[in-house]
Amino acid sequence: MSTEAGDDTAAPAAWGEPRSRTVTWYDPMVTAAGIRERSGLEALRALLDRELPPPPVTPLVQMDLVAVEEGRVEFTCTVDESVYNPIGVVHGGLVCTLLDTVAGCAVHSTLPQGVGYTSIELKVTYLRAVTQASGPLTAVGTVVKPGRRVAFAEGQVLDATGRLVATASSSLLVFPLPA
Amino acid sequence: MSTEAGDDTAAPAAWGEPRSRTVTWYDPMVTAAGIRERSGLEALRALLDRELPPPPVTPLVQMDLVAVEEGRVEFTCTVDESVYNPIGVVHGGLVCTLLDTVAGCAVHSTLPQGVGYTSIELKVTYLRAVTQASGPLTAVGTVVKPGRRVAFAEGQVLDATGRLVATASSSLLVFPLPA
Amino acid sequence: MSTEAGDDTAAPAAWGEPRSRTVTWYDPMVTAAGIRERSGLEALRALLDRELPPPPVTPLVQMDLVAVEEGRVEFTCTVDESVYNPIGVVHGGLVCTLLDTVAGCAVHSTLPQGVGYTSIELKVTYLRAVTQASGPLTAVGTVVKPGRRVAFAEGQVLDATGRLVATASSSLLVFPLPA
Amino acid sequence: MSTEAGDDTAAPAAWGEPRSRTVTWYDPMVTAAGIRERSGLEALRALLDRELPPPPVTPLVQMDLVAVEEGRVEFTCTVDESVYNPIGVVHGGLVCTLLDTVAGCAVHSTLPQGVGYTSIELKVTYLRAVTQASGPLTAVGTVVKPGRRVAFAEGQVLDATGRLVATASSSLLVFPLPA
Repeated sequence: MSTEAGDDTAAPAAWGEPRSRTVTWYDPMVTAAGIRERSGLEALRALLDRELPPPPVTPLVQMDLVAVEEGRVEFTCTVDESVYNPIGVVHGGLVCTLLDTVAGCAVHSTLPQGVGYTSIELKVTYLRAVTQASGPLTAVGTVVKPGRRVAFAEGQVLDATGRLVATASSSLLVFPLPA
Repeated sequence: MSTEAGDDTAAPAAWGEPRSRTVTWYDPMVTAAGIRERSGLEALRALLDRELPPPPVTPLVQMDLVAVEEGRVEFTCTVDESVYNPIGVVHGGLVCTLLDTVAGCAVHSTLPQGVGYTSIELKVTYLRAVTQASGPLTAVGTVVKPGRRVAFAEGQVLDATGRLVATASSSLLVFPLPA
Repeated sequence: MSTEAGDDTAAPAAWGEPRSRTVTWYDPMVTAAGIRERSGLEALRALLDRELPPPPVTPLVQMDLVAVEEGRVEFTCTVDESVYNPIGVVHGGLVCTLLDTVAGCAVHSTLPQGVGYTSIELKVTYLRAVTQASGPLTAVGTVVKPGRRVAFAEGQVLDATGRLVATASSSLLVFPLPA
Repeated sequence: MSTEAGDDTAAPAAWGEPRSRTVTWYDPMVTAAGIRERSGLEALRALLDRELPPPPVTPLVQMDLVAVEEGRVEFTCTVDESVYNPIGVVHGGLVCTLLDTVAGCAVHSTLPQGVGYTSIELKVTYLRAVTQASGPLTAVGTVVKPGRRVAFAEGQVLDATGRLVATASSSLLVFPLPA
């Protein structure tokens, strides 16, 4: 018997057959430890090269890091009905997740080993609805201004035809990691 | 053979055993159709009462609608390592997803049948890092100002001890649905 | 002969008679120096009690500090046609100025002497148009979360009848002032 | 006897000599009426060419429209101590005013006659402190996505050396003007 959220053995016939997706990940602390011992750029390259396990959220939202350089990262994201909201389109939270990811990773790529970051805030502007037909999506994050105490990044999400579907600005706190 | 994102049969031993979660949902168009034929408040109550299938994103992020009234909704959310980011805490995108959800549903609860909504933008402020130990989370959305063309909502996320971990403001476009 | 911006001796007759307002202030460095030698709460009280000269921007936008306590400040603001925009209502920038002010002062009120602050970002939501008939406005700033590295505040602007006309959230960097 | 805000005949000697600036403007309803009878692009060109009186807020904050094309506007702004805040730098509200202005005018430039706009929200990111030495500032607004119901714009403020000092994103409601 499964206790998975969303499973409902008593689902009415009108709901149709249940559909499912299995998400697989590895111990996130292996990833986190590997990241702490590298500079930001090295850490992101280790993720890109799969030297470190992808963090769990990555397969959950079906996104993949595809390019990284200092101050810029790029992800792709598969969109299917598993991220649909009640009104029958991709949930805005998926778009936010992509934008938070690329903003954070763009800033991370500028940080030396021993320096951490955390998002202070993120503002997402939704330009176009996203559906399965929109994908795969491309998300690009760029540093607007690096910093020793606060850094700024922006992000864009494009659909498969290259149209801008969302943008974001984010500010991030930068701080020395405890030894 | 699985083709699931995140599965990797050649994973190095250092990554440890893979972990997994199966997400189950129903046809999102059944949900969307049921919502269109109800007022916002009726639609949300139908989701609360499981007369309509929960939208797919709900089990994906392990959130549940627990209360709805006109202008206010409340969700709970289980947080586990499946939503962890590379630095070993809950991904900010999960928090955004909760906040986008409660802002949208709060506005939806004020709309008559035949009127739709879509998020224009969302700004999330991250007050505290979230880990597994923070949960379950509670997310509350409240309408700041309803409207016939644009409506405004705000959201809060609280940890299991009642501390505020994030806030958001959002504006949403309100429009007549095509018949 | 005046060289003031906005003066135009060749103005067409259709523009009607020019109108003017003279803004008077004191050396802003006297204010800034007095603020640095006080805690935030003492500094704001010194402004409230007119022990220190009001900063120049205060008479420019016709706002006045009227209440201060730890974590909360209140300003009033006269609105007249001198802050009108091209479409014949109060410029949104005036509302932003009030909100930036109350967010910053609310955080300032929590800081000890020797600690400075600067705004990282401000998001303003405009709920209702503001005209001369709306005023005087009241602006209230409240600290959402104080901090040693970053602090969070929110603000509200109310019209003379107590209706909410705008809200804001802001994050601010907090840092030790150079000795 | 003057009743100007900021004037204080009993100012302590330590405050030094009062300083002042006289702001001159014309009936804002002449401007607003002239704008309503033109398309957005024509209206902005009429302001640029001084066929219409500049709105009052323009001389107040010492900004000037210097370029306009469909979807893009540019302003310059003089910064002096008259816009200083209590901590001795240019008030963030001035930067917001510039950004709100350029975002709104950029969207306005895309609208036909008979269609109005109003800002829904504005998020400003402050990248660098601004002082008198920063100026004159240049502010550029660009439409990210025009629309019949909502439009999106972004803005940038540059200092005299071309460094980015602030950015903004804004969404605006677009609506038919009452006849």
